[in-house]
Amino acid sequence: MTENNSVGTGSVGIVAPQTAHFAKPLTLKSGAVLPQFDLVYETYGTLNADKSNAVLICHALSGTHHVAGKYSENDKYAGWWDNLVGPNKPLDTNKFFVIGLNNLGGCHGSTGPVSINPDTNQQWGSQFPVVTVEDWVKSQALLADYLGIQQLAAVIGGSLGGMQALQWTIAYPERVRHALVIASAPNLTAQNMAFNEVARQAIITDPEFHGGDYYAHNVLPRRGLRIARMLGHITYLSDDAMGAKFGRKLKDGVKYSFDAEFEMESYLRYQGDKFAGEFDANTYLRMTRALDYYDPALNHDGDLSAALNKVTAKFLVVSFTSDWRFSPARSREIVKALLDNERTVSYAEVTAAHGHDAFLMPDAHYHNILRAYLNSIEVGTHHAK
Amino acid sequence: MTENNSVGTGSVGIVAPQTAHFAKPLTLKSGAVLPQFDLVYETYGTLNADKSNAVLICHALSGTHHVAGKYSENDKYAGWWDNLVGPNKPLDTNKFFVIGLNNLGGCHGSTGPVSINPDTNQQWGSQFPVVTVEDWVKSQALLADYLGIQQLAAVIGGSLGGMQALQWTIAYPERVRHALVIASAPNLTAQNMAFNEVARQAIITDPEFHGGDYYAHNVLPRRGLRIARMLGHITYLSDDAMGAKFGRKLKDGVKYSFDAEFEMESYLRYQGDKFAGEFDANTYLRMTRALDYYDPALNHDGDLSAALNKVTAKFLVVSFTSDWRFSPARSREIVKALLDNERTVSYAEVTAAHGHDAFLMPDAHYHNILRAYLNSIEVGTHHAK
Repeated sequence: MTENNSVGTGSVGIVAPQTAHFAKPLTLKSGAVLPQFDLVYETYGTLNADKSNAVLICHALSGTHHVAGKYSENDKYAGWWDNLVGPNKPLDTNKFFVIGLNNLGGCHGSTGPVSINPDTNQQWGSQFPVVTVEDWVKSQALLADYLGIQQLAAVIGGSLGGMQALQWTIAYPERVRHALVIASAPNLTAQNMAFNEVARQAIITDPEFHGGDYYAHNVLPRRGLRIARMLGHITYLSDDAMGAKFGRKLKDGVKYSFDAEFEMESYLRYQGDKFAGEFDANTYLRMTRALDYYDPALNHDGDLSAALNKVTAKFLVVSFTSDWRFSPARSREIVKALLDNERTVSYAEVTAAHGHDAFLMPDAHYHNILRAYLNSIEVGTHHAK
Repeated sequence: MTENNSVGTGSVGIVAPQTAHFAKPLTLKSGAVLPQFDLVYETYGTLNADKSNAVLICHALSGTHHVAGKYSENDKYAGWWDNLVGPNKPLDTNKFFVIGLNNLGGCHGSTGPVSINPDTNQQWGSQFPVVTVEDWVKSQALLADYLGIQQLAAVIGGSLGGMQALQWTIAYPERVRHALVIASAPNLTAQNMAFNEVARQAIITDPEFHGGDYYAHNVLPRRGLRIARMLGHITYLSDDAMGAKFGRKLKDGVKYSFDAEFEMESYLRYQGDKFAGEFDANTYLRMTRALDYYDPALNHDGDLSAALNKVTAKFLVVSFTSDWRFSPARSREIVKALLDNERTVSYAEVTAAHGHDAFLMPDAHYHNILRAYLNSIEVGTHHAK
């Protein structure tokens, strides 16, 4: 990584991913064992002398390690949370050392279903185990060890990423000082899980899925993944946001056909096609299953307050009014459970029209809240280099 | 039909469908012409001497002509709105002559994609035209002619059926005295259309769809239809209703698999499988397209009040608090447009937990509202037979 800002004011500049290899077997929550694994990550900013300024960003369903910056001057797109991370941005890389990684089971370089299983010398495919939020946090802690970081200044995540931030505070209370849990929930509602199930069934019943071993057949279950993504996009936007963005606008009048006559239809098909050409179906299945399973209160008779009993981190919880997939009510459950334990928690319910996607948008009110909170985090002032 | 009540108190008893054949070509809104067509229908109760007691029930997406009663003593299920229609029920067949029909393009006996195209002696398949709410109402008016009914006492429908009831008052203001528009909307929101689009794409991209001509290949696009139905079921229930019905209940513990581990998953798969074995995919495409296209305000610069300017019928509009697919706000648009025209309209926003499906449930408050309204409709007292 570099502090060359030539790709734009406030940008972390040109960045490059790195790979951490872990040679020791990792036992997953399911009992399955990964004999070894890689995690691909990027970092922005500089780790300070007392290693007190590290911030981990956890990604959601289809995110990656590429959070900020560009890979070249001509790179068309910056990282997925570039509006948040950079010099003088809300998550200021002049102050913080920021880490983004691709989660285990992903399809962007970290060990996942597309990787070679060393035991068989074949791609893992259907044999790659189901990973959980708990497994991800465990592997992220190993990455922190690898980077020599004992305690994170903060863990930040939206949606499924917020669940990981929450899990950090449960699994490693002594290793995280602040958790920023955004547009998230302490578990999925039945409706959310139902959307995941429909998406998975679209993939699994695609004739080109081949039970998850499509690599060996040299085909991809594109049809299923496309449907899954189209459905996802409906749930990321609010009804109002879809109305404002597309409404009932026709591209070229009514044709009495099943072609994409409405602009919204073209948008969904485009998003579906694009994703189906880029993302791995086996990873998608596992990411949604991790969402389904996460439920820290399950082993506490459904009592979230009991589940958060050992948490010591301070929290910022943020929700968005138009987010019907991870509604403010779900964020308030987290806030309440923290308050039951007399923990320090700030909560903001941001008025925003963009639905669940709002957590990725540079809404001024939202970003000011994050900036203010992150500014207040104390870090050592002596730089390592 | 008979008034034999042996299948249960308040039941219309054992019923049988009838077929009306229309030999004259029907020009559809698209310009396509059906050379001839059949409508399958059922009736309950007795048409009175002045033919002033006829009530038409319009079905929604997957409904049929079989509204009430059973086909035999051993018939496991009664018609789809049996809780509403029968002697002494809210829509009282001692007073009214009730007509249910299968809409044009359907797959339960009325002319549709599965029917033989007389021009080719093959099943219509992909060549069956796209039908609209306006076309349905036009064909329903022809059915009323066929039955010798000049004016309907009422047209009733929920969801897509409510759109037909509304359209009756626009297309044939002199032929309908009352419209009962339930859990409906004056057009679909972009979000609703988006769900339809995902469902259609699941069907159309099923390799066994064959461009709509799967009959000729002796296969069915079951996978696509199954996904469409699973998705539909999510939108028929509210998040709260799904939570109350299934929550996060596991069938037999976490297995770290993609099997149906949660009860909700089993439910959705069951509903999807059942529907995929019963319903015609080409019909499903057309029913959802009719929903998308319906928009009476479109030719009035989006002004629904102008679109309803010639309406003379009296209205009962009913919505349900938990219906997020056809929300109360959409019903209020209809009410407001009627009030702008100084028409007589009653409106009830029923507190109900079942989401969109509430319109099919025998909720006491809801049924009392329908009963009171229907009781107030005046009909001639002399019976025809």
